Amino acid sequence: MHVTIEDAHKAIAAARAKAKELGTQMCIAIVDSGANLKAFDRMDDAWVGSIDIAQKKAKTAVFFGMPTGEIGKLSQPGGSLYGIEHSNQGLITFPGGIPIVDEDGVMSGAIGVSGSSVENDHAVAEAGARAIGTTALPAHPWRT
Amino acid sequence: MHVTIEDAHKAIAAARAKAKELGTQMCIAIVDSGANLKAFDRMDDAWVGSIDIAQKKAKTAVFFGMPTGEIGKLSQPGGSLYGIEHSNQGLITFPGGIPIVDEDGVMSGAIGVSGSSVENDHAVAEAGARAIGTTALPAHPWRT
Amino acid sequence: MHVTIEDAHKAIAAARAKAKELGTQMCIAIVDSGANLKAFDRMDDAWVGSIDIAQKKAKTAVFFGMPTGEIGKLSQPGGSLYGIEHSNQGLITFPGGIPIVDEDGVMSGAIGVSGSSVENDHAVAEAGARAIGTTALPAHPWRT
Amino acid sequence: MHVTIEDAHKAIAAARAKAKELGTQMCIAIVDSGANLKAFDRMDDAWVGSIDIAQKKAKTAVFFGMPTGEIGKLSQPGGSLYGIEHSNQGLITFPGGIPIVDEDGVMSGAIGVSGSSVENDHAVAEAGARAIGTTALPAHPWRT
Repeated sequence: MHVTIEDAHKAIAAARAKAKELGTQMCIAIVDSGANLKAFDRMDDAWVGSIDIAQKKAKTAVFFGMPTGEIGKLSQPGGSLYGIEHSNQGLITFPGGIPIVDEDGVMSGAIGVSGSSVENDHAVAEAGARAIGTTALPAHPWRT
Repeated sequence: MHVTIEDAHKAIAAARAKAKELGTQMCIAIVDSGANLKAFDRMDDAWVGSIDIAQKKAKTAVFFGMPTGEIGKLSQPGGSLYGIEHSNQGLITFPGGIPIVDEDGVMSGAIGVSGSSVENDHAVAEAGARAIGTTALPAHPWRT
Repeated sequence: MHVTIEDAHKAIAAARAKAKELGTQMCIAIVDSGANLKAFDRMDDAWVGSIDIAQKKAKTAVFFGMPTGEIGKLSQPGGSLYGIEHSNQGLITFPGGIPIVDEDGVMSGAIGVSGSSVENDHAVAEAGARAIGTTALPAHPWRT
Repeated sequence: MHVTIEDAHKAIAAARAKAKELGTQMCIAIVDSGANLKAFDRMDDAWVGSIDIAQKKAKTAVFFGMPTGEIGKLSQPGGSLYGIEHSNQGLITFPGGIPIVDEDGVMSGAIGVSGSSVENDHAVAEAGARAIGTTALPAHPWRT
């Protein structure tokens, strides 16, 4: 199952509300479970450089079914996934990308947020995801 | 001046309404006057291949300040701009991309639509652009 | 021999003067004989889409030691070089790119111009090239 | 507001003067606030490899509204933005890219310099930027 445009809009609205609460300007991307872009918003005055980062975070989260920051722990020098960012035409492996999981434990897509500190990016992504589902996947192989 | 996120949402909503009226499923992209993505919507069941085409149409329209179909007339075999699609990491030169011009004659961005016939794509793009401005640029040099 | 920055500036100034005389706004690129960018100018209000086209025209002219429009005659459907634009990360094969040749018949670089009709683009490129040399190469193998 | 070609020339001239004072050969790029190239100069004998680096530094500075070296502090192994260079078709996050800010606190573009040590690159970029404005942005959200 793929996230619907109606749910994508709900997630973006919730993310935007959280971004405003934090006094930040964010780029917010929603991809479906095939990692293809579903919806995108660049808030006024958000960094232009965040357009691509938000989308890459969302793709990275759905590519591996986990928050981007989890991959980043393994991609450091000496880590088991060192250099994984070179794959898939560029991954982003710091926090701000989160899978979106529906009530049946199925991953319907992911949200990626960029525009502030990684802590704020992650908080805004979480607010967006939770508006339409959960972010915790059951044990792999999870379903899409 | 760049299109605001509020106006981008208005344009997308109007484009979506037109798409539904036509019984189509569209990808709709809004870029600012620097050709950077501002907002994007993929309606449910729209072609995945249209995600990139809609964005490239919007960029192409802002790159040259004219509807994409106008460029396509000149880029046919034997035409003066044959092969221009190879520039800028890929242009789309058939109809569906239109500049967005504000009341002062300033190009604030562009809309790109893909997902049906080029006639429908163009009609949906025009409905989106007209919701927040006009599509006719004054004689070049227009301002951004 | 490569075009010097002093000569590149002379060529751009002459091209800009011609562009103004024609009432146009141009992107003007100078590359050296290795096809590497030497100098670039985007006149105010020139098309953003012309940034890349001007550079690709200059590269194309130096890649093959001939005006871009000459290659375009051969790259039409059915022509002997059909599809050559797919090489070198994108060529532009319509007029506006011209080799720059010094007094010894050595190609020192090329100029690429984009921003108006191909006739105007070519005229502006020629004005730029002639300010610092000629545009006619001796029979191949020419020297660089 | 975008940097004008007149101002871009002033910035490049000041940067070149500083480069000569330091006995260096630089590539100098100016981009507008949409990260699109406005003007570029490669001084004689500057590294060919610096052509792309100078442009990427300018883009990186405008993408995030800060000197490139600031981002580099956060993108080291273990840092919060580790791997950000994989976004936006390649960022450069060591010093030499600086935003250009006008008298109203608006970011009109950025300058990127490459060709020597990062200290020299940064000094030359600063000389260029200061010729036409300041380099200190007000608190975000800054305007473009």
